[in-house]
Amino acid sequence: MLPPVVAAVDLGGTRVKLGFVDGSGSVLDHDAFDTGAFDGPEALARGIGAEINARKDRFDLIGIGIGAPNGNHHRGTVEHPPNLPWPGVTPLASLFSDATGLPARLDNDANAAALGEKRFGAAQTVNDFLFVTLGTGVGSGIVVAGNLVRGYSGFAGEVGHVIVEPGGRLCGCGRRGCLEQYTSATGLVKTYRDAVPDAPDDADALYVFQQAQAGDAAARDTFETTGRILGLALANSVAYTSPEVVFLFGGLAEAGETLFEPIRRHFNANLLTIYQGTVAIRPSGLPSGDAALLGAASLVWHERGR
Amino acid sequence: MLPPVVAAVDLGGTRVKLGFVDGSGSVLDHDAFDTGAFDGPEALARGIGAEINARKDRFDLIGIGIGAPNGNHHRGTVEHPPNLPWPGVTPLASLFSDATGLPARLDNDANAAALGEKRFGAAQTVNDFLFVTLGTGVGSGIVVAGNLVRGYSGFAGEVGHVIVEPGGRLCGCGRRGCLEQYTSATGLVKTYRDAVPDAPDDADALYVFQQAQAGDAAARDTFETTGRILGLALANSVAYTSPEVVFLFGGLAEAGETLFEPIRRHFNANLLTIYQGTVAIRPSGLPSGDAALLGAASLVWHERGR
Repeated sequence: MLPPVVAAVDLGGTRVKLGFVDGSGSVLDHDAFDTGAFDGPEALARGIGAEINARKDRFDLIGIGIGAPNGNHHRGTVEHPPNLPWPGVTPLASLFSDATGLPARLDNDANAAALGEKRFGAAQTVNDFLFVTLGTGVGSGIVVAGNLVRGYSGFAGEVGHVIVEPGGRLCGCGRRGCLEQYTSATGLVKTYRDAVPDAPDDADALYVFQQAQAGDAAARDTFETTGRILGLALANSVAYTSPEVVFLFGGLAEAGETLFEPIRRHFNANLLTIYQGTVAIRPSGLPSGDAALLGAASLVWHERGR
Repeated sequence: MLPPVVAAVDLGGTRVKLGFVDGSGSVLDHDAFDTGAFDGPEALARGIGAEINARKDRFDLIGIGIGAPNGNHHRGTVEHPPNLPWPGVTPLASLFSDATGLPARLDNDANAAALGEKRFGAAQTVNDFLFVTLGTGVGSGIVVAGNLVRGYSGFAGEVGHVIVEPGGRLCGCGRRGCLEQYTSATGLVKTYRDAVPDAPDDADALYVFQQAQAGDAAARDTFETTGRILGLALANSVAYTSPEVVFLFGGLAEAGETLFEPIRRHFNANLLTIYQGTVAIRPSGLPSGDAALLGAASLVWHERGR
């Protein structure tokens, strides 16, 4: 008997990853493609669909899970993605279904990763949590009573675009002062450059981290500022859905206590009394390399229940 | 055959209201008591429980719904209420059950009113919404996919305690800069007094409204400032649960377009593109006099489904 497996697709601006994920979160087979090698989304779905179809003799494929930028779960669409060469609205889930005959579920990458945390990561026994990715941007997914919050629009859970500094740094979304302009890896480097105008041209978040580890005052202040802004924003976030855990994922989260300590300090200093002692800030339990595939796969596995 | 009815209890610092609410939202019988007339919560539950028991020959009582300050639905408790003479944690739902033999459900008043909006008000066909009360404080309830968000602590949905002005006005919660210090009726009057130090001692929100209607510049600026702070806070709120509607309820909401116009203008100016056109700001459809009783009753009616 063939093992039940989900075909997981992680769609990025430069690469598309494909993985086959079983119910325990093992990635049984891997593949990857250049996004630009396909002439549009129909060709991409046909091409990767053919790779999926080719595994039908090895796996009992129960569905396709797709994590994509600006993905909308309600409609199965990718809508106006800034980093893909496809303008407008693409019904990517149905294109994959048409190419394979399999049911397909799609969501944005942060929502998918949040479900991955619930299914395969550190949230397996946690029913109310906030999942925040700190990478080149700040993404998030919100789980309430065991289910992902999609909201009326299907785009719920954009904590990175909460305005924390009215009139502040210009964001890619066209507004000013969004959280991600301050607490993404990019935002952290910007804060450091504001303080150290003659920083090396190639200074990145890892550089600032290493400078902080070496005791550099400006780098340490940068982590303090980042932790202050993120700690307050997360304390405010608790007032919406009252999570048991806030999971931090992504490149910046790998800075460990250098980042977590100031976040926790400002978080606790700003947390409403009734929430004190009810909520922890913890690193994600997802393996960084496979997180996107596990997230995409969980879109299908989650519907199956335990 | 007796009509199925919920006994609804609206517990306040000075008055306790009791109503008997049928499935269509009609309040078939009313009563009210001084909170201070009862010697503690056990006596209150026994006394009002006796009034409920006395209706068992008239109604098919299916349960008791209780709206209370600092009420916790998970535990059926009232916890450290600032405006009640009961310190600590009171298991009020079980006291009412013991006194009547009926199942009892309890939640904080804003959560209960949000469910009332869903069951009996303007949200009957709306599954994702934010309900905000603008009274002496700012309370809120959040509905996602048709259900109230309670969160891990049971205290989810405290939008009034999102910090919008770090280091700002001192709040009753002990922190500074909470939304309710600026956009409650009390906060609006404070904004007006900051601008008009010689305002009459008895100037209240109605006075400021009337001054604004008469064209007074400081009063109009006060509504503009209040709308700016609330409009931004609501736009930020959408990034969490992506509601279809934000309902505004309470004394201040009765200022109509004098308040709604600046709120909507600042809300739309600060709303992330992907949410534009997906969310409306509307007045509550609950009758102000019976809203608390309808909310309390809906805690039981909601569990029955449609």
